[in-house]
Amino acid sequence: MSKSLPKRTEDYSLWYNELVKRAGLAENSSVRGCMVIKPYGYAIWEKMQRTLDDMFKRTGHQNAYFPLFVPKSLFEAEEKNAEGFAKECAVVTHYRLQTDPDKPGKLRVDPNAKLEEELIVRPTSEAIIWSTYKGWIQSYRDLPLLINQWANVVRWEMRTRLFLRTAEFLWQEGHTAHATAEEALAETRQMLEVYAQFAEEWMALPVVKGVKTENERFAGAVETYCIEGLMQDGKALQAGTSHFLGQNFAKAFDVQFANKQGQLEHVWGTSWGVSTRLMGALVMAHSDDEGLVLPPKLAPIQVVIVPIYKTGQLDELLERIRPMQMGLIERGISVKIDDRDTERPGFKFAEWELKGVPVRIAVGMRDLENGTLEVARRDTKEKMTLPLTDIVNSVDQLLQDIQKNIYQRAQSYRETHTTRVESYEEFKQVLEGKGGFVLAHYDGTSETEERIKEETKATIRCLALAEPQEEGVCIVTGRPSKRRAHFAKAY
Amino acid sequence: MSKSLPKRTEDYSLWYNELVKRAGLAENSSVRGCMVIKPYGYAIWEKMQRTLDDMFKRTGHQNAYFPLFVPKSLFEAEEKNAEGFAKECAVVTHYRLQTDPDKPGKLRVDPNAKLEEELIVRPTSEAIIWSTYKGWIQSYRDLPLLINQWANVVRWEMRTRLFLRTAEFLWQEGHTAHATAEEALAETRQMLEVYAQFAEEWMALPVVKGVKTENERFAGAVETYCIEGLMQDGKALQAGTSHFLGQNFAKAFDVQFANKQGQLEHVWGTSWGVSTRLMGALVMAHSDDEGLVLPPKLAPIQVVIVPIYKTGQLDELLERIRPMQMGLIERGISVKIDDRDTERPGFKFAEWELKGVPVRIAVGMRDLENGTLEVARRDTKEKMTLPLTDIVNSVDQLLQDIQKNIYQRAQSYRETHTTRVESYEEFKQVLEGKGGFVLAHYDGTSETEERIKEETKATIRCLALAEPQEEGVCIVTGRPSKRRAHFAKAY
Repeated sequence: MSKSLPKRTEDYSLWYNELVKRAGLAENSSVRGCMVIKPYGYAIWEKMQRTLDDMFKRTGHQNAYFPLFVPKSLFEAEEKNAEGFAKECAVVTHYRLQTDPDKPGKLRVDPNAKLEEELIVRPTSEAIIWSTYKGWIQSYRDLPLLINQWANVVRWEMRTRLFLRTAEFLWQEGHTAHATAEEALAETRQMLEVYAQFAEEWMALPVVKGVKTENERFAGAVETYCIEGLMQDGKALQAGTSHFLGQNFAKAFDVQFANKQGQLEHVWGTSWGVSTRLMGALVMAHSDDEGLVLPPKLAPIQVVIVPIYKTGQLDELLERIRPMQMGLIERGISVKIDDRDTERPGFKFAEWELKGVPVRIAVGMRDLENGTLEVARRDTKEKMTLPLTDIVNSVDQLLQDIQKNIYQRAQSYRETHTTRVESYEEFKQVLEGKGGFVLAHYDGTSETEERIKEETKATIRCLALAEPQEEGVCIVTGRPSKRRAHFAKAY
Repeated sequence: MSKSLPKRTEDYSLWYNELVKRAGLAENSSVRGCMVIKPYGYAIWEKMQRTLDDMFKRTGHQNAYFPLFVPKSLFEAEEKNAEGFAKECAVVTHYRLQTDPDKPGKLRVDPNAKLEEELIVRPTSEAIIWSTYKGWIQSYRDLPLLINQWANVVRWEMRTRLFLRTAEFLWQEGHTAHATAEEALAETRQMLEVYAQFAEEWMALPVVKGVKTENERFAGAVETYCIEGLMQDGKALQAGTSHFLGQNFAKAFDVQFANKQGQLEHVWGTSWGVSTRLMGALVMAHSDDEGLVLPPKLAPIQVVIVPIYKTGQLDELLERIRPMQMGLIERGISVKIDDRDTERPGFKFAEWELKGVPVRIAVGMRDLENGTLEVARRDTKEKMTLPLTDIVNSVDQLLQDIQKNIYQRAQSYRETHTTRVESYEEFKQVLEGKGGFVLAHYDGTSETEERIKEETKATIRCLALAEPQEEGVCIVTGRPSKRRAHFAKAY
């Protein structure tokens, strides 16, 4: 607490890492690339989970749970998906340890306990789930099948960063099966809308909805839709994806249904997911050099009350604060009274600032006598004096204002960091300058996309759904183009 | 649906397996020993989770998340714990697959991607969590540390059964650290009470609270407390455990704190858990030859309404049913209207019986005109005619009655299946006869306990906390004994 955070402008990456650790969100573990999600971080994730889960259920989905392991033969069945994930798979080869004959007190892998077939720790569950769906789907009456799973997955990434890229992460993965391509596409787009709504209304994060190019598409998908947010360093972050799988997995796992005419057809699939990566997006989109700035709707503690008192006064003061606390709780606002007598108010203020609590109320005896309270909002650091009598309404309104303000600030940042360019020169200048989304025409080929990536590190984040058709020429090759793509450097 | 279930009296084990599958709770997967938890089963588990999670939070615990993998060197650090789990560990040895040079289109483990140190898929998380706590605990101010995790764990069991014993299962594991032995013991007992309350009030499962003998103790614990339920085949089932770890893990991982006098001491630990095994207990404790019998408090659907109609009448009937449905929902009761026009009422009745829905209401036009409804309760199969005007209150009351009745039925079964015996002869007779708990004196030695287990397959389920001190003699050796133990055959 004593040392201040690195500044965003000086070292954004260090600022992020230190903030995540010091605010008590997560830390690195002794397992390479795996993180520990600490209680305060997990409390935010739980709010995200609960909200998304309710949204999934309202759109007709049910939760289920499928195995952690995928036998290698199943994993291989959908070729593109297998190739896409093969390079980062944790593989279980043995099922027992034994006393090491050479090192007393140590264990070693029992060479006699080798698995006949290796098990892949799921990097994603299409294979295991579609092999199960084969048994669940016979007729059009079994469709649509709308299932979601909350789970851990493992991708053996070489460079990891807390929340943004970790070997193990938590996520949800929806996997649905439909009778027609149209229905599956409608589902894919519906879940994209759900994610966008969650990002904007709960995380206060404006997102661009779009479709990925072939280069950036999910391995095994026909089309990948995504939402892309913009962080304060001008880099984009993919915050959620929704895939139209066509009949790829149905064919790989032979999942067919009898239609109303009694003919067999392969079903159409989708999958969609968001992960603990959202935690990284949340931190990077809004926080500042003093610490986290949490949108009230996802803050585990929305209001902290810090009593200001002289020795011997605390108990009386606390008793007089209770009715206000109760009033806020009854309104559905989560409140913490920081009654530690081991720390001074200044220390407490800094700590709750670091932790991003949206509203702080400092209360002393004199305030209560005057009938006013000193209220500070985290987002703007504005302090105000509010009447005690109407405090519940004022705080409720204030929380709503903060939620809105954080969103608007992020949106206006995005507006000033979205640039339409007409030449490759300009493209590079913007990328090296303020960064952000750069909207440019390109010729639609993977080659050009690759070349731009190699030369500038910018990738096509998406072809935005809201971007109109527009005649233009590719900034690299000069060939004709019909729409602009959203380019950016990205996490 | 067409084939009826096996009967409990004929083949209890087959009855259980078939019921779990046909009711849509779970099924075996293509991964040896791992199950798929199907949506209906998962919905029950979610209710269990939500309830327990609320209870944990009310008792001051916070959730967090720790890595799936445990490096071998950490796993070994607490010797007894390591030995206890070594024989059933899934081990990750490699982190990449590659194209198999001998088999086109197939993948194989990349021999160049061998991990320097093997990773154990957690069978339980004491090792990884205590190695983390070392960094979190410095002073008495950091204590108590009260943390819970919802996670999947893997134990490579050779004989598996849906929910009861699976290679991967879902659970929660609480891990707490305290300044004194007394506090840690109080926590251990508090969590035992939480589990007992959950089992009795929510699962309608009466449990015996007790402490394990050394033979049955958790590897690495000083004392293991447990709750034991009785299934309808006379076998006991351990439904939850709460361990007092003493300073074992604190010493193994060097977790010390400065006490108020500034001296360093090792902290005291507890851990406690319940798992998807509870699903097996729930099924086996209450269900019958027609299907599941779910306690209303955990039933995903509490009331099913089956419309009885002539062709063309359905829409009108449904419209007239809505107000009743709304009234029930407003009361917080979950209701499903089974409006499928592809199935007949008799089929629907059987299906909802199989799925254990506590209350079924059949409604036809004539019923509505008469102002009465035909209501059937699942537990007793009793049918009654109830006035439509007061239906919400009646159903609410009925659900409470069913919850109580299921509990009382299980309790009276346990009473008639708890036998105090005075000789080994009698002990064996009861075990081979009606089974259940057999309360007997034994001399307190592991040898006698082992001998009884070998000769009768009965184990000491626990030394019940409520069992009074009583002078007696061991039924096997004749040596003196001061209390009776609860013996039983067990899952």
